[in-house]
Amino acid sequence: MKTLHSYAQDQWHQADDGFKTCHNAITGEPVAHISSQGLDFAAMRDYARDKGQASLAQMTFHERALMLKELALHLLSKKEDFYQLSRATGATRQDSWIDIEGGIGTLFVYSGKGRREMPDHTVYIDGAYEPLSKDGSFIGQHICTPMQGVALHINAFNFPCWGMLEKLAPTLLAGMPAIVKPASDTAYLTELMFREMVASGVLPEGAVQLICGSTGDLLDLLDGQDVVAFTGSASTGQYLKSKDNIMRQGVRFTMEADSLNCSILTPDATPDTPEFKAYVNEVVREMTVKCGQKCTAIRRAIVPNALMDAVSEAISDKLANMVIGDPANETVKMGALASLDQQREVRQRVKELSQYAVSVYGDTKRVEVVDGDQKTGAFISPIVLRASDPLNCAEVHDIEAFGPVSTLMGYDSIEEAAQLANMGEGSLVGSIFGYDDEAVNELVINTASYHGRLLLINRDSAKQSSGHGSPLPHLTHGGPGRAGGGEELGGIRGVLHYMQRTALQGSPSTLTRIIGQYLPGAKTSKPPQHPFKLHFEDLTVGQSLTTDSRTITLADIEAFADLSGDHFYAHMDEAAAARNPFFDQRVAHGYFIVSMAAGLFVYPEEGPVLANYGLDDLRFTEPVYPGDEITIQFTCKQKAYRRGKGYGEVRWFIRAANQNHEVVAQYDILTLVASKFEAVVEDEN
Amino acid sequence: MKTLHSYAQDQWHQADDGFKTCHNAITGEPVAHISSQGLDFAAMRDYARDKGQASLAQMTFHERALMLKELALHLLSKKEDFYQLSRATGATRQDSWIDIEGGIGTLFVYSGKGRREMPDHTVYIDGAYEPLSKDGSFIGQHICTPMQGVALHINAFNFPCWGMLEKLAPTLLAGMPAIVKPASDTAYLTELMFREMVASGVLPEGAVQLICGSTGDLLDLLDGQDVVAFTGSASTGQYLKSKDNIMRQGVRFTMEADSLNCSILTPDATPDTPEFKAYVNEVVREMTVKCGQKCTAIRRAIVPNALMDAVSEAISDKLANMVIGDPANETVKMGALASLDQQREVRQRVKELSQYAVSVYGDTKRVEVVDGDQKTGAFISPIVLRASDPLNCAEVHDIEAFGPVSTLMGYDSIEEAAQLANMGEGSLVGSIFGYDDEAVNELVINTASYHGRLLLINRDSAKQSSGHGSPLPHLTHGGPGRAGGGEELGGIRGVLHYMQRTALQGSPSTLTRIIGQYLPGAKTSKPPQHPFKLHFEDLTVGQSLTTDSRTITLADIEAFADLSGDHFYAHMDEAAAARNPFFDQRVAHGYFIVSMAAGLFVYPEEGPVLANYGLDDLRFTEPVYPGDEITIQFTCKQKAYRRGKGYGEVRWFIRAANQNHEVVAQYDILTLVASKFEAVVEDEN
Repeated sequence: MKTLHSYAQDQWHQADDGFKTCHNAITGEPVAHISSQGLDFAAMRDYARDKGQASLAQMTFHERALMLKELALHLLSKKEDFYQLSRATGATRQDSWIDIEGGIGTLFVYSGKGRREMPDHTVYIDGAYEPLSKDGSFIGQHICTPMQGVALHINAFNFPCWGMLEKLAPTLLAGMPAIVKPASDTAYLTELMFREMVASGVLPEGAVQLICGSTGDLLDLLDGQDVVAFTGSASTGQYLKSKDNIMRQGVRFTMEADSLNCSILTPDATPDTPEFKAYVNEVVREMTVKCGQKCTAIRRAIVPNALMDAVSEAISDKLANMVIGDPANETVKMGALASLDQQREVRQRVKELSQYAVSVYGDTKRVEVVDGDQKTGAFISPIVLRASDPLNCAEVHDIEAFGPVSTLMGYDSIEEAAQLANMGEGSLVGSIFGYDDEAVNELVINTASYHGRLLLINRDSAKQSSGHGSPLPHLTHGGPGRAGGGEELGGIRGVLHYMQRTALQGSPSTLTRIIGQYLPGAKTSKPPQHPFKLHFEDLTVGQSLTTDSRTITLADIEAFADLSGDHFYAHMDEAAAARNPFFDQRVAHGYFIVSMAAGLFVYPEEGPVLANYGLDDLRFTEPVYPGDEITIQFTCKQKAYRRGKGYGEVRWFIRAANQNHEVVAQYDILTLVASKFEAVVEDEN
Repeated sequence: MKTLHSYAQDQWHQADDGFKTCHNAITGEPVAHISSQGLDFAAMRDYARDKGQASLAQMTFHERALMLKELALHLLSKKEDFYQLSRATGATRQDSWIDIEGGIGTLFVYSGKGRREMPDHTVYIDGAYEPLSKDGSFIGQHICTPMQGVALHINAFNFPCWGMLEKLAPTLLAGMPAIVKPASDTAYLTELMFREMVASGVLPEGAVQLICGSTGDLLDLLDGQDVVAFTGSASTGQYLKSKDNIMRQGVRFTMEADSLNCSILTPDATPDTPEFKAYVNEVVREMTVKCGQKCTAIRRAIVPNALMDAVSEAISDKLANMVIGDPANETVKMGALASLDQQREVRQRVKELSQYAVSVYGDTKRVEVVDGDQKTGAFISPIVLRASDPLNCAEVHDIEAFGPVSTLMGYDSIEEAAQLANMGEGSLVGSIFGYDDEAVNELVINTASYHGRLLLINRDSAKQSSGHGSPLPHLTHGGPGRAGGGEELGGIRGVLHYMQRTALQGSPSTLTRIIGQYLPGAKTSKPPQHPFKLHFEDLTVGQSLTTDSRTITLADIEAFADLSGDHFYAHMDEAAAARNPFFDQRVAHGYFIVSMAAGLFVYPEEGPVLANYGLDDLRFTEPVYPGDEITIQFTCKQKAYRRGKGYGEVRWFIRAANQNHEVVAQYDILTLVASKFEAVVEDEN
């Protein structure tokens, strides 16, 4: 039997006493010993704050994003090792896929989003700048910088891999070091994956540490620069969150707790519809995947009373064909609970629920098992109940059996369905199956504030649906009220939980220096030559050129109308243009201004500028009339190197002004500019 | 003497017992009686949840934003009444301006931002949609909807008007009803303004209620759909936040507590610089405005040791000229503390601080007063201390005297300055005065995560600066750690605290129905005629037309190059274009595609479309070569009516595709479209 090690201050640590035993969920045999005894938690915290912070702070968001990709690739190359050990947790191959490849997938998504949606800089720019004075000399800009403490991740037993990686990805991208504390029951799988993370050599000094066993006094050592991200039971979460030190120091605490998630079938979804079939499949799937041990599982199936019998029958039929047993046998579709303790717990909860609901399917004491031993394995039958009076019974919305258990609840009106959904008092996720978008809309409007995520399935979306129970890295994971009030994931939103938002106020030049992006009004510099002749590395933010002017003529307008085909009356008809409330006379096409602007600022010969791939935030602020003289100022606004491609993205701020120095149009253009050091890799844009 | 009333269930309520007395800060005379006895707090909560929710839910964000504007206009018309009563709080006219007009200004800013940055719809669209399947049939979109409970606002005594309005503006814009609970000491001014809010007739049934006096058992009645926004002392905030019910129900709790805010002078800011003068002025101003009773006041002045004597002297000189007394006298620059209790409290704290710091200016027992009575008025002298060893003394960073009191702290290096700043363990705001942007940047990078706001002042920004102590509605107000970890304001960010973010997943059509904005892949409808012939009211989201195609020729490219002046080699030189990694041959100008697209979709005759005022998110996704046939699909994406203007904003989604159905460009264009009911008001765009 293995002894699990912790990883503290970049060293493996073995406890010498205080061990507990982790058991195989299928066979009941011991798998590993676990103890954190002897760890110096204060030293771990300080190591993260010193070494971890320093090493991550040197990297830009893009560099950290690439680090996540390399880490993901390494873990993917070792995935079979994880699958093999994962069986001991009671998981089928499909269950393990969610945990292992779902977790690694989260790293990939954060790697991509970090490079697309965050700057190639150490400061995150949050939202648009705010003009705070009329003359533009004093402006505001929100930024986010990593918290200067350590992120303590307290994970649940049901997803030993995903649970670690879904928290690590945003934390490391933010630039914050982490201490990972897996639940003891399945920590052996987390420890194996953690070993591979260390072995990859990808993560810098102090970025990650691991506690196998208890966290000791660590929570009492945290302060306002630290973050706790907790996944687990509501009661444990509330206990930790209300600890004196957490409260007093204002420690940021994200909590994601089990909730009694619901799935609603709309009245139009009669048994002949694709939505009915999709619903039955989803309820059964969500009951049985991971043996129902998911904080997102469907615990409450909310069904029109008119369809109740049909739904009960269809679900029972499907469950009757479900093969349960040792996941090593490939016919097995549902494995075991994580432990005999969990089995006892589920039985007890079903007993409590049975006071308020009648049995539709299954018996907690009887289950037919393939290749497994019922005495030593934590097997249990799927259980379907039907609530007797769900609108007047808080208990069926409150008692959670953390296993393959769901309760059917009948309703008569959409309003009642929404009311039942909300009686869960806050859920991670709800789903709605139906093709009547009006009913779906009404349900969403009335239940959204009780749910962190709502999955809306019909015949158009069912095939590609990722399912009720799967949190995706792109979307927030967490819910209000009972679900803990936290949010994880959600793309960059999840990264910001490990950062402090700070509102900066000052001159555009000072703020430009800090955010690495040119802000209007900041001091500019004269480039040594036309900026289009400069390679990526020679461009600096704030380099700016003002072009010669061009006088717009009526002939230009007519020629542009003819060439483009755009003969809109405001350009073509003097009298009609004058009738328009915004124009005094025939006005130049906005797109002509943008086009002739390029004519003024583009350097035509071959050079480092490879392509113009887009334009953002164009606003036409004053009309341009024949005789107006237009000048363009173009300024290097922001840079991001695409590592390995031989070029980078350069954003230019363009301002077109007339002879009275009035801005007539402003926008950003996006170009790709070659490196002077690396050869360009041929690739589609 | 006045008896303050509460406002519950749209009725004024007078208590009949349990009164406390509010005193005039200048004269010590009683101003008002206050008690909430007899209020039915459960009924107030239920009334907000029923009536308040229902009336606000019917309004779009734009309608609520206009409501805020009307409310602001009404309050502004009554401002002199507020100024007059405000004197009793000890405030000068300038102090009252911050409170009264600053508060009303917050309503105006939220009104503008609500209309510019939120949709004319009841669901807020949070971020971009997320493609979740390759075929586009399953996508994700975050939305925010108002929490279905009530917002309880617990306000501090120092800003009886601003404190109420800065919380109400985002709450009402979100669509959530509020119960306002002012601090008793100055509740008479809040009550007067609240009366005018009610009298305005602008707010719908149940939107606001007022508790003058204690909140009784209200906190124990809240659940996960309610929100508490607390401003006040850290200890009270922590007590309320950790209440069993708040914890167990996951009640959202935003806390904004006093903090020991710092202001740093950089080493380059010697006495001959504008930054030095600006620093001295700001420290003195922040010490004395509101008699130092601001949670954002400068408590710690962090100064280079080399400049310490010069700073001490300059500050002391300015303070010596400060006229203190009854604000009714116009020469008075600093009024009184809010009460004699506060005076005792400040004296006690200064005594504690004096163990660790020497006195530079002032004595808490002596003060020269104009037109005031020292025995009955809560007057106090400004006090400047100088910390003996600030790097090794936690107390000077921890003991807060909530009055005109600041402590000078010396440093030798930028690193030390940052360390001192961070020893406040989380602040609402810090400021940095200096013209050396490298030093400023280093300080920001190392202190930002400890601060909710950082003001960076130099000669360029000083004139227009809104000052260290003024939270602005555009920028977040709140700080980590000791400051409570909350965030208020920050534009729309502050609105979202009263809403639940929910990740929706489903088909583009279903999501379009809910968010009121066309999402790519959603079903479209055929408009009854060319959409440019339809008035604002006749356009519906999803109306879509596909144009005839146009074949791009080399002659087009050459003509466009000549007309625009853009002869970039990729358009003009076959061999050079082929050498470019992204192109095979001469490529059409991107702006030509955008221009000819307009030629294909624009209906040229006079009609309801008034102007094209912008373009967003243009991406060129495939090159266009001579011979390519381009077709345009244009779809009505989103609408927002500009009430009172006779027109609305219509956003169109444009997709240009080639003969192989590959998208070559996509973007949004922004138009103004006339109403068929209201005449257009002539106005600049």
